[in-house]
Amino acid sequence: MDRVSDVVVIGGGAIGGSVAWALARRGVSVTVVEAGRIGRGASWASAGVLAPDWNVHDQPALAELASASLALWPDWVAELEDWTGVGLNFRRDGLLNLWVDPEASHLPRDLATEPPPRCPGQQWLGAAEVRALEPGLTGPILGGVLSPDDAQVDNTRLAPALVRALSLLGGRILAGTPVVALTGSRGRCTGVRTVAGPEIAAGAVVLAAGAWSGPLAAASGIDLPVVPWRGQMLAFDTVVRPVRHIVFCGELVLVPRPHGPLVVGTTLEDVGFDARVTLAGLHEVLARAVRIAPGLGDLPLARTWAGLRPGSPDHLPYLGPVPGWEGLYAATGHGRKGILLAPLTGDLVARLVLEDAVDPRMEPCLVGRRDGPPSLRGGAGA
Amino acid sequence: MDRVSDVVVIGGGAIGGSVAWALARRGVSVTVVEAGRIGRGASWASAGVLAPDWNVHDQPALAELASASLALWPDWVAELEDWTGVGLNFRRDGLLNLWVDPEASHLPRDLATEPPPRCPGQQWLGAAEVRALEPGLTGPILGGVLSPDDAQVDNTRLAPALVRALSLLGGRILAGTPVVALTGSRGRCTGVRTVAGPEIAAGAVVLAAGAWSGPLAAASGIDLPVVPWRGQMLAFDTVVRPVRHIVFCGELVLVPRPHGPLVVGTTLEDVGFDARVTLAGLHEVLARAVRIAPGLGDLPLARTWAGLRPGSPDHLPYLGPVPGWEGLYAATGHGRKGILLAPLTGDLVARLVLEDAVDPRMEPCLVGRRDGPPSLRGGAGA
Repeated sequence: MDRVSDVVVIGGGAIGGSVAWALARRGVSVTVVEAGRIGRGASWASAGVLAPDWNVHDQPALAELASASLALWPDWVAELEDWTGVGLNFRRDGLLNLWVDPEASHLPRDLATEPPPRCPGQQWLGAAEVRALEPGLTGPILGGVLSPDDAQVDNTRLAPALVRALSLLGGRILAGTPVVALTGSRGRCTGVRTVAGPEIAAGAVVLAAGAWSGPLAAASGIDLPVVPWRGQMLAFDTVVRPVRHIVFCGELVLVPRPHGPLVVGTTLEDVGFDARVTLAGLHEVLARAVRIAPGLGDLPLARTWAGLRPGSPDHLPYLGPVPGWEGLYAATGHGRKGILLAPLTGDLVARLVLEDAVDPRMEPCLVGRRDGPPSLRGGAGA
Repeated sequence: MDRVSDVVVIGGGAIGGSVAWALARRGVSVTVVEAGRIGRGASWASAGVLAPDWNVHDQPALAELASASLALWPDWVAELEDWTGVGLNFRRDGLLNLWVDPEASHLPRDLATEPPPRCPGQQWLGAAEVRALEPGLTGPILGGVLSPDDAQVDNTRLAPALVRALSLLGGRILAGTPVVALTGSRGRCTGVRTVAGPEIAAGAVVLAAGAWSGPLAAASGIDLPVVPWRGQMLAFDTVVRPVRHIVFCGELVLVPRPHGPLVVGTTLEDVGFDARVTLAGLHEVLARAVRIAPGLGDLPLARTWAGLRPGSPDHLPYLGPVPGWEGLYAATGHGRKGILLAPLTGDLVARLVLEDAVDPRMEPCLVGRRDGPPSLRGGAGA
C-alpha cells in the first residue's frame, strides 16, 4: 500500500484536532471537517481534568491508555503552546478524591490497615488530613485519596489551539460543515461528502466526530455504538481559589481554574442529543457541592452549560481501522477521557494511518470488538 | 398651598411608574428620573404574582392594601394595555399554597374540622384534591389552600408600559440618570440633582427608588430604613404548562407563564446590594422545586437572575409625606408586594400629592412610624 498523503479528519474537537496535528507534523495534507464551530462540542464542555485513575470503570486498558497519555501531556502541551501562542494553563494541581459514604465499596474500612493505593504517588488521607489540605471542605468527609500528579487544562482553548497548529502547517479547516456521508466503493473509503457539495477525496478518513460518530457511521451501515452522555456544568466567579486541588466526590467535580472561575460538575445522563441544562441536573450537581463544601454557597454564578460526551458501551474508546471500510479509521467514544487521551490518540492514530501499526495498547479498543467488560479484560480484539 | 403642577418621581419601576402615570392623568407635568434602565430593577426581577393573602407577615394593614389593590388590577391593567398597546398577560390563574410540613403552624391539623380560610373564595384542599387539581405535583404534599382569584402578570413589561403611558401624556423620562441629592432649603424639598448636571426643580418629589431609596434618603439625613432583600430566580422553557395554578410552598413559587416559561423562585436574603445568583441560592430554590414536583426535573434552563426587593423592617411600605421635608413623599419599601400594590400606590400617592389627602389605609405606612409589628397592629402612625 502506498503511504497515505492526504487525510480527511471528521471532527474538530480535541481528538480530531490532535489526530490532525499529529498527521500534519508527519507531512500529511490534512483537512478537518467540523459540523459546528471549532471546539464547541464535548471538548469545550468538559471540566478539563486529567486524572488517569478515576472513572475508568474497572477497565485496566483504559487506565493504561490514560496514564500513558498523561505522561505525554507536559511536552505535548508545551509544544502546542510554543507553536500557537495559545496559553492552555496545564497545571499539576493534584486531585483529591473524597470519601463521604461509609458504604462506598471502593474505599477502605480502615485507613490505618489499608495497603497503599494502586497508583504510585497516591496516598490515603483521613478526615483530618483532608481538612488540613482543604479547609474549605467542611462537609461530612470521611477521607480520600490524593493523586498529586493529576492535572487540569483550559479545555475550552484546546481544540482551537490544535486547529491553529494544523493551520500553521498548511492544513485546511472547514468549520460549520456537517459531513452527510462517507464516500467509497468496493470496500474502500475514498472521502466524505459534506453539506457544502462535492466529495472531498482523501487517501484516508478519520472519524473523530464525538457523539455524532455513531449516527454518521450508522448512515453508512457501520455499527459503531457511540452514544451521547450528557454532562451538566456550572461555573462560579471567584477571586481567591476556594479549593487548592481538583476535587472529586462521586460524580461531583470541583476544578479551581487559575484564571478565576470554579468549575463545578457534573451529571452523567443518557438522554440522546439533548445538550440542555435542566432543573434536575442543576439540582443534582448543586446538592453534591453544598454537601461537600457548604461554604461555597456565596459564590456567584457565572454560567451554566452542558455537553455530550461520546460514550461507548464498555467505556473504552474506539481506536483503529473500521472493518469492511479500508482507509477509514475510528478515533472516537472517549467518554469522560477525551481531553486526557488526546495526545496519545493523536500519536497512535497517526502511526496507524501512516504505518499500519496497531499499538498493542489499542487492541482492546479496536472497532468490532465484542463490547462489554468480560471480553475486554482478556484484551481480545475483533 | 397652591396645587402642585410639576412633580419629579425618583425611580422608574412599577411603583414610580404607577405614581407617575396617576399624576400625569390628573394633569401634572411629571419627570421620571431612573438610575438604570427602565424597568430592570425589582419590578423586572419579580415573579409577577398578585396574591394579597400570602407573605403579609401578620400585618393586617398590608393584607388590606393588597386586597384593595388587587381589586383595582383588572381595570387598571386593561386601561394601561389600551393606552400603550403593551400586552401584560394579566391572568387569574388562581394560587395553590401547599402544605408539606406537618409542623407548619399556620396550617390546620385536620382539614375536616377546620373553619374556612380567612379570605372569601379560598378553600382548604386535602392531598387528593391537590393531586386532582395538579397531577404534576407528586411530592409529599399534605394539603393546601386554593385562592382562585389570585393572579399573575408579565411583570417584566409593566414598568416599560407605565413609562410609555406617561410618555404618551407628555411626561419626561430620564433613564440612566442617578439622582445624587435631594435639593431644597428651609424644610422644603425643591427638586433633585442628578449626575447629569443642574437641579431639576419641581413642586413635589416622590421617592420611589426601590431598595436604593434608603441610601438616597440617608444622604439627605432622612431615616428611611429600606434595605435590599435579594430574591434569586430561574426560568425553564416549557411548551405545555407543567402546572395550571401559581404554586406557593414556603418560599418556593412556581409561576406558569402563558407564553411558555415556568418561573421558579425564590430566596429571601439580606445581603446588601448584591444582585448576584449564587450556588446556595440556586440550590435552595431547586431543592424545594424537586421536592414538590420531581417530575419537573427534565425542564431545560432558560435563564437565572436575581433582584433586590425594597424591604422594610415591618414589611409595610413607606407611603406618605417625609417629615421635615415639605413636598417630599415616599412610595417605597413594598417588599414582595410591589407589583401587586402598584395600582393602589399610584392612586393613593397622587391624591396625597395633589389633595394632601391621607387615605386611612396609608396611616400604618406613614414615614417615621415606630417600626415593628406591635406598634402597627394598633394602627399608630408617627
